[in-house]
Amino acid sequence: MSLDDKVQSILKSEVIWDAHSGFMPDPAADLNNLRIWSDAGVDYLSIDVGFDLLPWEKTVATLAYFRHWILARPADYTLVSSTDEILAAKAQGKLAVTFDIEGMNALNGRIEMVEFYHRLGVRQMLFAYNRNNLAGGGCHDEDTGLTAFGRQVIDEMNRLGMFVDVTHTGYRTTMDVMEYTDRPVIFSHSNPKALCAHGRNITDEQIKACARTGGIIGVVGLNRFLGEGRTDSERLADHVEYLIDLAGPRHVGIGLDYAFPVEVEGIEDIISSNPHFWPKNEYPEGKTTYSSPAQTKELIEVLLRRGQPERTVRDVMGGNFMRLAREIWK
Amino acid sequence: MSLDDKVQSILKSEVIWDAHSGFMPDPAADLNNLRIWSDAGVDYLSIDVGFDLLPWEKTVATLAYFRHWILARPADYTLVSSTDEILAAKAQGKLAVTFDIEGMNALNGRIEMVEFYHRLGVRQMLFAYNRNNLAGGGCHDEDTGLTAFGRQVIDEMNRLGMFVDVTHTGYRTTMDVMEYTDRPVIFSHSNPKALCAHGRNITDEQIKACARTGGIIGVVGLNRFLGEGRTDSERLADHVEYLIDLAGPRHVGIGLDYAFPVEVEGIEDIISSNPHFWPKNEYPEGKTTYSSPAQTKELIEVLLRRGQPERTVRDVMGGNFMRLAREIWK
Repeated sequence: MSLDDKVQSILKSEVIWDAHSGFMPDPAADLNNLRIWSDAGVDYLSIDVGFDLLPWEKTVATLAYFRHWILARPADYTLVSSTDEILAAKAQGKLAVTFDIEGMNALNGRIEMVEFYHRLGVRQMLFAYNRNNLAGGGCHDEDTGLTAFGRQVIDEMNRLGMFVDVTHTGYRTTMDVMEYTDRPVIFSHSNPKALCAHGRNITDEQIKACARTGGIIGVVGLNRFLGEGRTDSERLADHVEYLIDLAGPRHVGIGLDYAFPVEVEGIEDIISSNPHFWPKNEYPEGKTTYSSPAQTKELIEVLLRRGQPERTVRDVMGGNFMRLAREIWK
Repeated sequence: MSLDDKVQSILKSEVIWDAHSGFMPDPAADLNNLRIWSDAGVDYLSIDVGFDLLPWEKTVATLAYFRHWILARPADYTLVSSTDEILAAKAQGKLAVTFDIEGMNALNGRIEMVEFYHRLGVRQMLFAYNRNNLAGGGCHDEDTGLTAFGRQVIDEMNRLGMFVDVTHTGYRTTMDVMEYTDRPVIFSHSNPKALCAHGRNITDEQIKACARTGGIIGVVGLNRFLGEGRTDSERLADHVEYLIDLAGPRHVGIGLDYAFPVEVEGIEDIISSNPHFWPKNEYPEGKTTYSSPAQTKELIEVLLRRGQPERTVRDVMGGNFMRLAREIWK
């Protein structure tokens, strides 16, 4: 079988899973851009609907609008709540989506908001977006660790069947979470610090602890976190392979955090005008660039060409997240 | 069969339906009071989670809390979305509940909020609470009629399968709604003006128009709307019988709007401090009192004793709303 045949076979039969998008969580966002993922052969995408910079009401409004938009286009998209529904969507050539929230400010300090968001399609939630909040510490803050409220949230997420996500979260809080929970934990979109010494990236110790829970680390496609200013598929593959070597092939996935050009225009302004969330030393002047879902095919090629077993490539591109979703989602 | 045997038979085999509660829509509300309905033999209750006096965010917060509270008590309560689930709940001795919202300010002017609330368990929504809003006119305002936004909301409610409710709504808007929709419309809790000349009550013309859509008028249990300062079961029966005579036995139900004593303490202050929503001439000083769900058994007795056929009593106590929910809810 030629390399291209192998790539096509993987794209055809494996659920290609992108664990996190970079949509601006705003009812004004243009969801026609979801076409970028569909066209690239991605089968499942977690769409972000909020992050700690925004008031909780904005997350609610965004979620209502995103649901409505997706439900109005049943020929192209399916709002799913199970892996069976993802498989059905793939079989019909539709993009399967669920939602994620980056940071627990969206809970408004109320534990009942977890089930509320779950009911509306949120299947993944991370603790703190860069700065501390009521649930725990952010990766660019004095990390005070997992709080009592954060532990309540974990219990509730475990009960309901959601991915407990520790991306953007402070070191101590990530370790606290992984010690506290009795379920697998994910870094939906975090890269190894060993390849790029950025405060948003994670240490070997965090990576190994995540794998020990049975969890997954998703490689993120931003130049700032990939290092060397690169976003090409070879660089993505470097991070994937580093994680495979350290955590094992069953604990690596993809979470590109892709934001399409129309929004990239504004992201520099948002970053530079919120140094509290994006400290100047961690986010120096310069353009944020992104690996695109359009690189999916190429990334598969690169990994195969480098000698990664087909089984490993399948697992990284989606098999691992599918396995974990089948285990965790209810 | 003795009268008491007949009453017991109805309570046992018919789904007793209260189309609207008078809970304060606030996360601080004590839902242990739901026990009042269970103990009275009520099988289904629509719990209000918002009204136009409150900001939409309050409705969202209330809904999240009420959902959470109910879902945490599966031995006593079931959050249902179909009549089959109501029958299952009754068979297991549980109170079945869904939610309603009084007034479309809760939509925040966004059509996508209809599906959002539906997903969270709202199965009934009325247009305007006493004062005009973006959707239509209130019963204590200069009624400017159903708006373009209001028509969009009707289309969306019909599509999703929700009760379009015209209680608290201005005369012209109620007539516009009943002309516009091609589905049955309800007055979940409104009394005939012929028996009590209050601005919140409805004319014979409105009652007949509602019945012509295939809809239902639910008798409300407040002294202000029952007239003569009464809330006793004989007075409730007077309103029930007036509606039966005018609209026919298939178009009458119960929507008590009961608020238990702990909250009744505060209602006078709320009313008197918001003359915009409760005009002084319509709501003179004096206590608001309520018919209680505890009168359910007595109301059945009174109606039977007055010679209403058992079939009619069954329909009024719940059969009609069950039939309509089976037709409308999806």
